[in-house]
Amino acid sequence: MTETTTAGEAFLADFRSMSTFGATLGGGVERQAATVADGQTRNWFRGLVEGHGFEVRYDVVGNQFALLELAPGAPFIALGSHLDSQPLGGRFDGAYGVLAGAHAGIRLKERIEASGETPTFNIAVVNWFNEEGCRFKPSMMGSSVFTGELPAEHALATTDPQGVSVATALEAIGTHGDFTLDVAAYVEIHIEQGRSLEDDGLTIGLVESTWGANKYEFVVHGEQAHTGATVISDRHDALLGAAELVVAARDIANRFSTDEYMVITSCSELNVFPNSPVVVASRVNLLVDVRSTDPDVLAAADAELHHRVAKIEQSANVRIERGAEHVWAAKAYDAAGMELAAASADALGLSHGVVRTLAGHDSTNMKDIVPTIMLFVPSAEGISHNEREFTNDADMLAGVDLLTEVTRRILDGEFVQR
Amino acid sequence: MTETTTAGEAFLADFRSMSTFGATLGGGVERQAATVADGQTRNWFRGLVEGHGFEVRYDVVGNQFALLELAPGAPFIALGSHLDSQPLGGRFDGAYGVLAGAHAGIRLKERIEASGETPTFNIAVVNWFNEEGCRFKPSMMGSSVFTGELPAEHALATTDPQGVSVATALEAIGTHGDFTLDVAAYVEIHIEQGRSLEDDGLTIGLVESTWGANKYEFVVHGEQAHTGATVISDRHDALLGAAELVVAARDIANRFSTDEYMVITSCSELNVFPNSPVVVASRVNLLVDVRSTDPDVLAAADAELHHRVAKIEQSANVRIERGAEHVWAAKAYDAAGMELAAASADALGLSHGVVRTLAGHDSTNMKDIVPTIMLFVPSAEGISHNEREFTNDADMLAGVDLLTEVTRRILDGEFVQR
Repeated sequence: MTETTTAGEAFLADFRSMSTFGATLGGGVERQAATVADGQTRNWFRGLVEGHGFEVRYDVVGNQFALLELAPGAPFIALGSHLDSQPLGGRFDGAYGVLAGAHAGIRLKERIEASGETPTFNIAVVNWFNEEGCRFKPSMMGSSVFTGELPAEHALATTDPQGVSVATALEAIGTHGDFTLDVAAYVEIHIEQGRSLEDDGLTIGLVESTWGANKYEFVVHGEQAHTGATVISDRHDALLGAAELVVAARDIANRFSTDEYMVITSCSELNVFPNSPVVVASRVNLLVDVRSTDPDVLAAADAELHHRVAKIEQSANVRIERGAEHVWAAKAYDAAGMELAAASADALGLSHGVVRTLAGHDSTNMKDIVPTIMLFVPSAEGISHNEREFTNDADMLAGVDLLTEVTRRILDGEFVQR
Repeated sequence: MTETTTAGEAFLADFRSMSTFGATLGGGVERQAATVADGQTRNWFRGLVEGHGFEVRYDVVGNQFALLELAPGAPFIALGSHLDSQPLGGRFDGAYGVLAGAHAGIRLKERIEASGETPTFNIAVVNWFNEEGCRFKPSMMGSSVFTGELPAEHALATTDPQGVSVATALEAIGTHGDFTLDVAAYVEIHIEQGRSLEDDGLTIGLVESTWGANKYEFVVHGEQAHTGATVISDRHDALLGAAELVVAARDIANRFSTDEYMVITSCSELNVFPNSPVVVASRVNLLVDVRSTDPDVLAAADAELHHRVAKIEQSANVRIERGAEHVWAAKAYDAAGMELAAASADALGLSHGVVRTLAGHDSTNMKDIVPTIMLFVPSAEGISHNEREFTNDADMLAGVDLLTEVTRRILDGEFVQR
């Protein structure tokens, strides 16, 4: 089913080379945004695509655009994802999609040059800055700035836990500029990071919609005291309040999920101050997020979370402040795009099904400004954000073939008009 | 009631000078063990006591001994506490007792020189290394090595979160040596860090016994996964397990405390890995301690804690490993010492009462090897390990007077025989 053995082997060879940047002992990668390892990966990617005739440009927030000018003056079809990773993350998440975009572009360039015809659009392969949001919050930072959801100056002033700003970090790795892209449509391919394709024995997922997600930064305020000498009734223990909130969030996921609609809650980042073995915590900062496929269920779960926060303030004798919030409403992808992708998969003989994405992706932002198609390939056991993340070679190559075919049809005017 | 206005003023002036080392904006100090601020405080203290004729020596783990040789060749009566502090700690905790010891020594030296008599013992004022245990665990490290409860090589090899060992940190501040002290008795004065003296309107607390304390380092093992894409049933969330343990510990304190016996549980240090907003935690390290005045109640509460740990492994779908443990049994102080202290307080017209200490002190170790007296002065509102920790001047001076009188009686042979 793959395009040609040679083209497939070229992709796999490049994928192996790419996976050496920030490689971890456990078979994953660690390339947090604008770190040395992220910079090295970006430079490697630049070298790769320039060798195939792309021109590389950067915008103000460090988004990396590999441009293939096939129709001078025409808008671009953007194929993208991200090269940054989680700490001890997998080597497929994001990186697969960027490299798949590059190889789709390379294959189409060869065909177009061979045919002598001029397509309707140009191709840009995009490596969005800081999709992961672990070093700098929020996630999907680059695409949020690109689509106007986040002011660039706000993103550039964001600091990591060591106080280094995005502006300083981008300066350090030297990959920022002032480019702007005239984009007509967006296509992203990504590993599923869930197990529905694997469970259903499918090769391709056509993403129908995103989940709605409400993410909150909470600050639990207690009072610093001696853990030995301070009796329980005198305590204002910020860590107890935070722990009750973590437990409540899981309880809400269990209570509000039904056979029809799922609710997922998470707290995975929590910092205790002063974090000493003998000092009752004066403050805990934590992130809690609530996601659901259904807006009404999400609203109900969110209301319950806020109700619980008020109750915990009483039970734990603390004050809970709600800081920044990031809210993404559940949204559908373009129906015509799903039809085009399904037809493309059928033409290639690839099995496919409709899926929802629980995770956020840069396409979540892009679909707000241009017609967007989001494609998945399977993740073994659904494991992701983990060094053991895995997608087999056949599935990766099937995805590259599909992305190539989908992009070919878009260049031919089947999805958006110029 | 104070010795003389001049002696009292001298103490208060020195106390103010001492409080400038590691001073924080909120009126406290931050002098974690073997940091630059701890080293500066030690050097200041050395200069102070050398100016009054003391000789300063250090032992292998950095305990600082200020020696006043009044009876050449005789054993020493040690007066001590600690100059290190918690992060954003108070300026009284520990430091008050060390300075009170120095001033008691200075006053007694003057009297003995005026009288021309030779006392039965010498005086050593001790600044125990790392009583707080926040940078290097466990707490009471210096006195634990001195009393043989902790091997020196084990203490010296202990590392802080940045991987710096005690040996390296002591080398950096230059305050370690090979001195050993021949000690006959130990007296420590400290702020209460509780509110019982204040509530009862008393100036002096005679400490009858320590609480029993079991401290555990737990490691909750989960599995790294994507917070967005991983459904609840697939999660092994180490932070959920840790949060359930924090909540369970408080519940045990509430359930096992009675009118007669109190149980106190704490968790104040908790570290999440990888601590990223979108990665289910793979591991959480946390410390949990259980304290009680009664050994049987403590044993029952401890058994319940371990029962809950096993239950949480099921409910949170995690594995919980118990790492290091530190167990201190509840123990009584010397009854004759309490009587001597009560008689001394009566002679000075100071109100006093019997108290227990919930917190650990270096005297908890010292009483295992020599007759030991532990004295408290009041803490305003019981606030401690907090920049707002406060003891008023009159209470501080009453404590110095009492420590002087108690030590005078010990030098006269009223407590221990040579």
